[in-house]
Amino acid sequence: MVGHSEARDIRRLDHEECYQLLRRRTLGRVAVRIGGDITILPVYYALMDEDVVFRTAPGIKLDAAVLKSRVAFEVDNGNPPWSVLIHGYAEELRDQELQAQARAKLTSDWPAGERERLVRIRVDSISGRRLVPVS
Amino acid sequence: MVGHSEARDIRRLDHEECYQLLRRRTLGRVAVRIGGDITILPVYYALMDEDVVFRTAPGIKLDAAVLKSRVAFEVDNGNPPWSVLIHGYAEELRDQELQAQARAKLTSDWPAGERERLVRIRVDSISGRRLVPVS
Repeated sequence: MVGHSEARDIRRLDHEECYQLLRRRTLGRVAVRIGGDITILPVYYALMDEDVVFRTAPGIKLDAAVLKSRVAFEVDNGNPPWSVLIHGYAEELRDQELQAQARAKLTSDWPAGERERLVRIRVDSISGRRLVPVS
Repeated sequence: MVGHSEARDIRRLDHEECYQLLRRRTLGRVAVRIGGDITILPVYYALMDEDVVFRTAPGIKLDAAVLKSRVAFEVDNGNPPWSVLIHGYAEELRDQELQAQARAKLTSDWPAGERERLVRIRVDSISGRRLVPVS
């Protein structure tokens, strides 16, 4: 029932707190616009400096990247509840040295061979919020 | 390193499998278009028949709902990896009997009082996929 829950408040996270939380996780979601529709895709990610990198197979994720689309990227947690939201441009990572760095950071939880191409989201903005108990 | 991971394959889930997975979880993400940008918002959800309902505060989530926007909704899991993606129209749930049914199903993990309004996503399409080991 609404009203029976513990009182909580939403607190905005600063830039450094957002990145601290992102560094702890590996599973995020990318949202891209395809035609008139939005698609949300889960991806295993890593950070390179302050940008997000993930593997992808040729397909909608890469198409969006190649087109230098503006995308949203989100990571969250249920307990304690927090979420971080990024906006930025997605592009294919083509530099071989950067590719090697990215692969070394990424988990290998996806089908081998299929997802050799790498996408970087150049972060324009990052914001986060956390629910905190109200005493 | 890519290539060292266990071989896996992507299997598409049928309609009933998608709903079985959705019924097990409570935290999902809604993506809505606001101006030229996409925003992804985590929400605690429940199912009413085959539609998704969640609480919201007045703000961008509700504005999108009131405007009968087309939205995407996603739920995923890291281990074992699966994801379910919904497309549909979001609308405010105004019928008092349906509101009571929705509130009884929803968790109360959000700030009390602030999120009294309810949004329903009328599901147009649902799809899912699961990574399965290749023997």
